[in-house]
Amino acid sequence: MRAAVMRNGAIVVDDVPAPVPQSGEVLVKTLACGICGSDLHVLQHAGALARNPEVALGTAVDPRRDMVMGHEFCAEVLDYGPGTGQRFPVGTRVCSVPNIVRQQQIVGIGYSHDVPGGYAEQMVLMEPSLLPVANGLSTDRAALTEPMAVGVHAVEMARLSGDEVTLVVGCGPVGLAVISALKLKGVHPIVAADFSPERRRLAEVMGADIVIDPAARSPYSSWEDAARASEQGAWAPVNPLTGEQRLPPGVFFECVGVPGVIDQMMVGAQPGCRFVIVGVCMEQDHIRPLLAIGKELNLQFVLAYTADEFARTLQHIAEGEIDVDPLITGRVGVSGVARAFTDLKSPEAHAKILVEPWHE
Amino acid sequence: MRAAVMRNGAIVVDDVPAPVPQSGEVLVKTLACGICGSDLHVLQHAGALARNPEVALGTAVDPRRDMVMGHEFCAEVLDYGPGTGQRFPVGTRVCSVPNIVRQQQIVGIGYSHDVPGGYAEQMVLMEPSLLPVANGLSTDRAALTEPMAVGVHAVEMARLSGDEVTLVVGCGPVGLAVISALKLKGVHPIVAADFSPERRRLAEVMGADIVIDPAARSPYSSWEDAARASEQGAWAPVNPLTGEQRLPPGVFFECVGVPGVIDQMMVGAQPGCRFVIVGVCMEQDHIRPLLAIGKELNLQFVLAYTADEFARTLQHIAEGEIDVDPLITGRVGVSGVARAFTDLKSPEAHAKILVEPWHE
Repeated sequence: MRAAVMRNGAIVVDDVPAPVPQSGEVLVKTLACGICGSDLHVLQHAGALARNPEVALGTAVDPRRDMVMGHEFCAEVLDYGPGTGQRFPVGTRVCSVPNIVRQQQIVGIGYSHDVPGGYAEQMVLMEPSLLPVANGLSTDRAALTEPMAVGVHAVEMARLSGDEVTLVVGCGPVGLAVISALKLKGVHPIVAADFSPERRRLAEVMGADIVIDPAARSPYSSWEDAARASEQGAWAPVNPLTGEQRLPPGVFFECVGVPGVIDQMMVGAQPGCRFVIVGVCMEQDHIRPLLAIGKELNLQFVLAYTADEFARTLQHIAEGEIDVDPLITGRVGVSGVARAFTDLKSPEAHAKILVEPWHE
Repeated sequence: MRAAVMRNGAIVVDDVPAPVPQSGEVLVKTLACGICGSDLHVLQHAGALARNPEVALGTAVDPRRDMVMGHEFCAEVLDYGPGTGQRFPVGTRVCSVPNIVRQQQIVGIGYSHDVPGGYAEQMVLMEPSLLPVANGLSTDRAALTEPMAVGVHAVEMARLSGDEVTLVVGCGPVGLAVISALKLKGVHPIVAADFSPERRRLAEVMGADIVIDPAARSPYSSWEDAARASEQGAWAPVNPLTGEQRLPPGVFFECVGVPGVIDQMMVGAQPGCRFVIVGVCMEQDHIRPLLAIGKELNLQFVLAYTADEFARTLQHIAEGEIDVDPLITGRVGVSGVARAFTDLKSPEAHAKILVEPWHE
């Protein structure tokens, strides 16, 4: 079958063996698969990841071996492997969390050398993970379940109690998913910051209340102004020692994933601020612990989502509570994947490009 | 008055002006003051701290100006400033959180260029912060309130719910205070690790259940064994995907404060582990975010204690629920402070040295 393959640090089109469903697995046709920023990172940092096996997510990366990436997909049931209940008729459109279990090991679909991801015409999934896509829901929108679930999970992990004021640093697909999940939870105000005008426009569309260009104004002082003016600010406690009105607690979402951002956020944050680290920085980063100690900061690193959060996200999209249409900015066949990886580096042009592996 | 002064990167004995109590303040005689590891760090890193004003704790450090350190004290009321209620008779022994408020600014006693800390014969404190020391409680023990309160606070900030298994990395005074606060809360097992045999002995005395020499055995695999064998381990959930028995959640206390330790802990930790960063690292540190993301780690940086935690700690010591005697390994006058700073670098010889500034 045709696939866009990561090979020797590049994306090439090639024929690869079609996967064979093992016990409990289902063979599916990939209808659409989003390109994730993490895929761009893995392509760039495969060598470094291989030298740091302890930091790899799931399967260790071996740059000498082919990998078919792609973990944000909507697919169609083609055939069932042994030991399956055949719950859904062939032809049913499905979504699934992108992993399967083989020999009691979790295998990440899209980050494995052994099974292909969504940049190939076919994949294998686990039957118990299949979620049927409602008739009224387009394949494109369903394929956005995975990245939007990342936002839903990040907001769950933030353990918001209602008195916080949020800041989203970086409005790429991850930041936009976080904004959309915050809006869904009724959290206000949502302050968001990105250098790109187009990303700032999307942040507003997805539900940010205050959108900042960090080149023009500090996101942190903007956050302070917003916090002071907010409903939460009116109820914020007074410092018993100095009599000074405190700011409501901050929850900052790191959605950039580049070295230095966490340190910047530590400089900008108020005491007691909680960070949710959603951006996936694959390089070594530096922090100044004393800065975090002096403010008693909390850093919650997060990854992916639970199966339940994933299922709820699909339902939110189906019911129109999360509108993903503004995020879809392009569509390519297998031969367009390499170019799409390059195009995605321009935030003015693109947010999410979908791969349709059955198209040239 | 006589004081051990930090001047030009060294500790020297000199006469300095006695402080004058301002409105709401009390003049006290310093009876005993512990030397804190942070004081050793500040002496060593004063220049670097001055160049990084954004990371300074409270007052910015100016290496060109004198500073009288010392923030772990028991003192005696000598005189009252204006606007005080004179709640306690002159001669009353007191403890206090080491800060005062002047011009609505918090001034850290022991880290200020404007008011002296406990390595001087006299200090000024705020009347509302004074806690009388019970008659039966020795001055030495009362002086340990501050460092022990650091442990009480760190354990509070860990938000333990009872299903966790704890690991204390580093058994200097900070780690020992954490162990003692965990024991006070009835937390078991407490796993603790330190390279020094004497520190490991103290860790056991203070209440650690399993004490590890990292040169002989990984603290993290020791933690895993302890977690598996613990009562919490018996109730740990099963991974729904792989059917594998999970380990109970880990809470790791970083009590070393040296670059590289957090990264090591990230390598050793199980998914979902929470770190409480109590050790005060004053240099830049490196982390690999991907490592923390893959395990969804949480880092809570902590500082000091609340006034309530401080008062409770004094009470615990008075009631014999925290036994601080094993920690006190030396006693010096002002002229012995410089030497004590050097001696404290040997974990075999010393844990806590008390300064008695009225003695030569």
